[in-house]
Amino acid sequence: MILVEPSGPMNLGSVARLCVNFGVKDLRLVCPKCSPKDSEAKLMAVKGIDLLKSARQFDCLLDAVADCQKIIATSGRIDHGGIPIDPPDKVLTWSIKNSPKGLIALVFGREDRGLTNEELLLAHKVIRLRSNKTYPSLNISHAVAVVLHEYQRVSGEGIITDNSSFHKEPAPPLQLEACLNDAQDLLLQVGFLLEHTSQSRMAKLRALLQRSDIRKEEVALLRGMVRQLRWAIQRKDS
Amino acid sequence: MILVEPSGPMNLGSVARLCVNFGVKDLRLVCPKCSPKDSEAKLMAVKGIDLLKSARQFDCLLDAVADCQKIIATSGRIDHGGIPIDPPDKVLTWSIKNSPKGLIALVFGREDRGLTNEELLLAHKVIRLRSNKTYPSLNISHAVAVVLHEYQRVSGEGIITDNSSFHKEPAPPLQLEACLNDAQDLLLQVGFLLEHTSQSRMAKLRALLQRSDIRKEEVALLRGMVRQLRWAIQRKDS
Repeated sequence: MILVEPSGPMNLGSVARLCVNFGVKDLRLVCPKCSPKDSEAKLMAVKGIDLLKSARQFDCLLDAVADCQKIIATSGRIDHGGIPIDPPDKVLTWSIKNSPKGLIALVFGREDRGLTNEELLLAHKVIRLRSNKTYPSLNISHAVAVVLHEYQRVSGEGIITDNSSFHKEPAPPLQLEACLNDAQDLLLQVGFLLEHTSQSRMAKLRALLQRSDIRKEEVALLRGMVRQLRWAIQRKDS
Repeated sequence: MILVEPSGPMNLGSVARLCVNFGVKDLRLVCPKCSPKDSEAKLMAVKGIDLLKSARQFDCLLDAVADCQKIIATSGRIDHGGIPIDPPDKVLTWSIKNSPKGLIALVFGREDRGLTNEELLLAHKVIRLRSNKTYPSLNISHAVAVVLHEYQRVSGEGIITDNSSFHKEPAPPLQLEACLNDAQDLLLQVGFLLEHTSQSRMAKLRALLQRSDIRKEEVALLRGMVRQLRWAIQRKDS
């Protein structure tokens, strides 16, 4: 991650935090106009404070990208001297594909006027975010957030394996069937289903439950409900 | 865009700016802990200042989402009570595909502790960003930036809407809420729910129905069922 002449300490701190949020281990600053030691920068960095402190400084962008295999710049400007500009997913996919192990530089420009055309020309590719035409200009730290998340997405890293939804055991078809039959009996008994509406209404209930990919424990819950309702109704009959 | 109890004026202002950056025209605040009129909020909003001023305020999330067809929440927490969580591209593609014209609510929680499990259960889907495991927690405005850009990306790619199964009208949140409350009363009455199990069991039922993307007519069917069961039980009492 390379920032060229960042001037807002809060932005600087926010970017450091984002680097840690997305596993970026190298933060470089080209002629920063504010100090990484600024209290506002530290405040915004939160757990990115070590990265902020260790950020290396360079006199020009060329020096900062010297050891990088792929250089990706970002631009919000329209007048970019004819340099081809693409959306982030396209550029990042390309860079990962073509530099699977090399260092990839992501370069962000000044808060007020971005990167110069000369700086953009140091890049292999230039990104522009998919923002609204009427007001396309994001705060720099928000642009960084978008690009880092997009990098994570296209590189397949940080894929969430939540699991709670997958570790649960799906309901065996016979269990669901038995539960639905049980419910049907009850609903016929209380007159919610009539002989001639029974089939179509039960089909609707079944479709609803199938669509939710119902789990074993959930069928058990529904079955318990049916049982308790039946008990409440029959209690009076006996 | 819905923020629940935002407390940082700079975050609030940043989100308003991002909304304009990405063409979002509706900003809603649930019990905000800071004022949209705060000078820091206005400063960060830049060209989002009109949206910030016009943000509507609500007393609870349910009221804020009442007119929305799809409700997408975000969570950074791990202990989310078993609610399925997916990456943004997957959830946003789903929401656009299944609600091509309806209002989609993007809900972000408190800066310090996100959304409660009860609030997450109001959502059809929950997003977690693809951030790094060691420090996954983004500042809220950066999370908003990522999600809005991702929305733009997936909606701009000309997603094919295979809608065969989705012409049905989704259930409005208030309708589902009323139905669940009605069912809860009945299930307490028959002793299936006890005061101390009520909340967790109802949460399971709610999660099941949300996962199935329940439709208006299906909620009506369930409601009719509850009514008929209640009638069958009370008939005996009279």
